Amino acid sequence: MKRKGIIIVVSGFSGAGKGTVMKALTAKYKNYALSISATTRDPRPGEQNGREYFFVSNEEFEKLIKENGLIEHAGYVDHYYGTPRKFVEDKLNSGIDVILEIEIQGALQIKKQYKDAVLLFVMPPSAKELEERLRGRGTETDEVIRQRLSRAKEEAEGIENYDYIVINDKLEDCVERVNDIITAVHNTPDRNLEFINDMRRQLNEL
Amino acid sequence: MKRKGIIIVVSGFSGAGKGTVMKALTAKYKNYALSISATTRDPRPGEQNGREYFFVSNEEFEKLIKENGLIEHAGYVDHYYGTPRKFVEDKLNSGIDVILEIEIQGALQIKKQYKDAVLLFVMPPSAKELEERLRGRGTETDEVIRQRLSRAKEEAEGIENYDYIVINDKLEDCVERVNDIITAVHNTPDRNLEFINDMRRQLNEL
Repeated sequence: MKRKGIIIVVSGFSGAGKGTVMKALTAKYKNYALSISATTRDPRPGEQNGREYFFVSNEEFEKLIKENGLIEHAGYVDHYYGTPRKFVEDKLNSGIDVILEIEIQGALQIKKQYKDAVLLFVMPPSAKELEERLRGRGTETDEVIRQRLSRAKEEAEGIENYDYIVINDKLEDCVERVNDIITAVHNTPDRNLEFINDMRRQLNEL
Repeated sequence: MKRKGIIIVVSGFSGAGKGTVMKALTAKYKNYALSISATTRDPRPGEQNGREYFFVSNEEFEKLIKENGLIEHAGYVDHYYGTPRKFVEDKLNSGIDVILEIEIQGALQIKKQYKDAVLLFVMPPSAKELEERLRGRGTETDEVIRQRLSRAKEEAEGIENYDYIVINDKLEDCVERVNDIITAVHNTPDRNLEFINDMRRQLNEL
């Protein structure tokens, strides 16, 4: 049975650790690929084209939009961010599950086009823990931390749009739970119609 | 977060090995209980009351039906079979997932009453393999084997009613896949509303 890849959209509060979880997941299991976004913002020190992002000009980005080359895109603070379609579809066709880290608007755009995409929301064990993780980074001002928590409040209103939630208590456990969820999702009848129909044909031929 | 148990209904072709898979699953993981059916048929040699079945009289069975003491029941070849409600609900309330091995009619009866029950269909890797397993038992006549295969044909028509299918290729892998699926199912937003609402409250209080 040829397994087709699935799009896994991962969202979650800033500080919930979704980036870390997805990096650990893709390092451990080879059947996942992390999608790389295109953006018009400048690379930050240490960022590399094709690794963190594809860094493109405004013109190139608008060309991608016009040619339907992005499966979702959004503008934040004067810059565009989007998910190149080709990378995603190449992976899906070769049986690789593609993980996209995007927020809720993008997640819903994806679900409209790819009915069998799975939406995952990563949560901290508690709000207190979230605040501590944000403060623990030591890189953000109080103002920024307050903005992130206030953004988390908004995002929490949309959780019911997601198919699964994952609580990031211990990194390893969380990675296993995400892998369990994706494994489960591959086992629904609608994702195995070919196998089911083969079985029916075989039973009729016995 | 107090975890509530979920009903897992398991069906599958005779010979697909669902009984073996469920026994191995409950032996390995302690958060599952196998439901024990009540029946009016006589015990077979080696069967024990309260282990394979609760063996009851016709009168007792009809009393159970009248008192709403069964969550599903059906008659086959002059005998009643049914699932006692009390055992199931006691387990669910103490956070244990309850596994019921029943066929499709019973499965659909359960799903009507327990909206969040999960229906699982166990399949052999191929029809050929199914036939070989049935013949390999060496206990069944050709006639019985043909009946089972013909029944499998009918059952195969209902697979789309199930939430998940599991292919029983290698016992250990299959057990893990079932466990993955049940783990995933515990992670849907509607089964974690208490946690989600707690998180919202906490975020508002920060």
